Amino acid sequence: MPTAGEARHESAAMAEAELKTRRDISDRVREAEHPRSQVVRFGADKPLKLDSGVELSPFQIAYQTYGALNAERSNAILICHALTGDQHAANVHPVTGKNGWWEIMVGPGKPIDTNQYFVICSNVVGACMGTSGPSSINPATGMPWGLEFPVVTIRDMVRAQAMLLDHLGIDTLFAVAGGSMGGMQVLQWAASYPERVFAALPIACATRHSAQNIAFHEVGRQAVMADPEWRHGRYLIEATQPRRGLAVARMAAHITYMSDAALHRKFGRRFQDRSMPTFSFDADFEVESYLRYQGSSFVERFDANSYLYLTRAMDYFDLAADYGGVLANAFKGTSTRFCVVSFTSDWLFPTSESRAIVHALNAGSARVSFAEIITDKGHDAFLLDEPEFFTIVRAFLSSAGKARGLAAQ
Amino acid sequence: MPTAGEARHESAAMAEAELKTRRDISDRVREAEHPRSQVVRFGADKPLKLDSGVELSPFQIAYQTYGALNAERSNAILICHALTGDQHAANVHPVTGKNGWWEIMVGPGKPIDTNQYFVICSNVVGACMGTSGPSSINPATGMPWGLEFPVVTIRDMVRAQAMLLDHLGIDTLFAVAGGSMGGMQVLQWAASYPERVFAALPIACATRHSAQNIAFHEVGRQAVMADPEWRHGRYLIEATQPRRGLAVARMAAHITYMSDAALHRKFGRRFQDRSMPTFSFDADFEVESYLRYQGSSFVERFDANSYLYLTRAMDYFDLAADYGGVLANAFKGTSTRFCVVSFTSDWLFPTSESRAIVHALNAGSARVSFAEIITDKGHDAFLLDEPEFFTIVRAFLSSAGKARGLAAQ
Repeated sequence: MPTAGEARHESAAMAEAELKTRRDISDRVREAEHPRSQVVRFGADKPLKLDSGVELSPFQIAYQTYGALNAERSNAILICHALTGDQHAANVHPVTGKNGWWEIMVGPGKPIDTNQYFVICSNVVGACMGTSGPSSINPATGMPWGLEFPVVTIRDMVRAQAMLLDHLGIDTLFAVAGGSMGGMQVLQWAASYPERVFAALPIACATRHSAQNIAFHEVGRQAVMADPEWRHGRYLIEATQPRRGLAVARMAAHITYMSDAALHRKFGRRFQDRSMPTFSFDADFEVESYLRYQGSSFVERFDANSYLYLTRAMDYFDLAADYGGVLANAFKGTSTRFCVVSFTSDWLFPTSESRAIVHALNAGSARVSFAEIITDKGHDAFLLDEPEFFTIVRAFLSSAGKARGLAAQ
Repeated sequence: MPTAGEARHESAAMAEAELKTRRDISDRVREAEHPRSQVVRFGADKPLKLDSGVELSPFQIAYQTYGALNAERSNAILICHALTGDQHAANVHPVTGKNGWWEIMVGPGKPIDTNQYFVICSNVVGACMGTSGPSSINPATGMPWGLEFPVVTIRDMVRAQAMLLDHLGIDTLFAVAGGSMGGMQVLQWAASYPERVFAALPIACATRHSAQNIAFHEVGRQAVMADPEWRHGRYLIEATQPRRGLAVARMAAHITYMSDAALHRKFGRRFQDRSMPTFSFDADFEVESYLRYQGSSFVERFDANSYLYLTRAMDYFDLAADYGGVLANAFKGTSTRFCVVSFTSDWLFPTSESRAIVHALNAGSARVSFAEIITDKGHDAFLLDEPEFFTIVRAFLSSAGKARGLAAQ
């Protein structure tokens, strides 16, 4: 039996936890509706026509830009973010206070040089940082959409981005670049709008999700949906948060982003703050502490339903299937220049997947260069300090820029 | 609002679910205390001395035997089971009604031929099929142990098996064999009791858990512990069952048991019972249905706390660490004959781990043969129909049998 003092303490802690949940929810819905970004709102006259047949309207896109559009409107680069990324590629993140997810790649003098290029990065449809998604308000009910939000695809994300470019008056992108789910969008851009893409940089990606990829995503979704606080997706309305389920999903996914070798190099079998095992279920090993931290920090910035929607979009992605099962047909007659990049230790999207893209492009006589970067950092290498990778991106953009008539500043 | 009829239906379904949980719990505790196996009970005079310093007493070991012990007591083979296996290696499982987990390997005329050998398989300490573990009754309280059960190690499992052999009057094993966690026990046997092991068959295993191995286990444990029905390990007492958490843990683990290629061959991106996506979070893909089935069937036969204990034991395993960090010292001067087996597509315990064992044995001039079986079936290959694997096991046992003076029948 707890003492009266303990009971008071426990009830105060519970009240505080509930307060934090309510504050988190109101912050999340505010960021979804009124993001700390530029936003374009599309009204009833401009619905987003989804692959599911649903017309999403009204809807909005949140985006960031870096650098300046030139007079010819010919120097725009669209950056497509990965599953848990967002539009804050190269600025301090308004929720976490951390640097943008691709700060190492995008900025003045960086490989994607904002002194030369006008860089746009928009939050994908289905996400949670200001583009319409399950934590946005459903105008029909005045409440967060939850699972009433329509299921979206990679092609839907790209359609929404095309509407954003129309709005910005950009007819042709100088380049579109992205890794992982971002790379899928790059491939979809090149297939859906070849005339609007001068150069394409699909990185650490594939033209379709493998059975193993789908399996890992399904584990993550089941972890979220197993959390009773998920409330069949109605947690924002019912003022709960499926924190533990989403943390487990993130932990499982995070392992797939790193290589066995990188985990060994970073953590090995080292104990956390001790020299002996505790013979308990505490986080004895450093790798356990690290994973627990990855899980718990992720839930502070990401929406559980968005995690379901975006993993689903990736699972559905199968570019060849949309072209009669022949991948080469997706890029038939393209004049886009491609630079395909993979990383040796990436086991989520191994080099063989990038080679399949290159073969399909070669079959259509497309201009394509291919680089496999030697690294032990796994899938996440596209976000990390990889000098050879930076050199390749810089050289590809410089060469494509000359062809496009962009003068170096 | 549900109608009165719906409410009645729902309340009947809930009552039925609760009844099933209570029935499951009583079945589980009964199987833990009075298993449908042979059992040996060790009293206060024979405690099991654990690595944690705890002396477990009383405790019991449940086991199965196949074939007959010869007059010289020289033809005994101990089979060590993997994480989710048990003593029912080669008989119909009393809970699932399915064949034993190594029926393909053990039996009359099989590679481990019960016409020639006396095969023993015991449930490991910490498990849930009749050897003492967290679902057994704690004699101090009269209730299931739950997390009060001491944390165990691979060495503890082997110590308990040695006590069983003493009880059976078997001084020296002709062989000890096992895959995965079973292989870890084989290595521990060869290190702890070299004079009691004539031949050793460690299969698809390693001498220590890697950071990635630990990481996957930690995800599984967190999935179990995130389930509110887990009740800090007291679910058997509080009449709940952490079904969803354990199912998610099993799903994540199951992916690691199969290769990417095997998942692709078995499921690819095929839809389940449909030709089009549903644009929902149903199990659209066959691989999703399969994983969900793996998760839900596992919880019917396995105890969630045992899952925590056994994954922990594997994480703690680091044979070299017990021998001054030099693996070769673990096998110094051994006269045991070894046959080390790995599978090309096993990414949980890759061939490099088996090679490390072979190198350590070579360093001590031990008798060792090594086979890497070419297969796309991943880690689970040691449980499956792999003719080359069977040939090797048969040949190794036959040759060791000759050296041991066992006449073929």
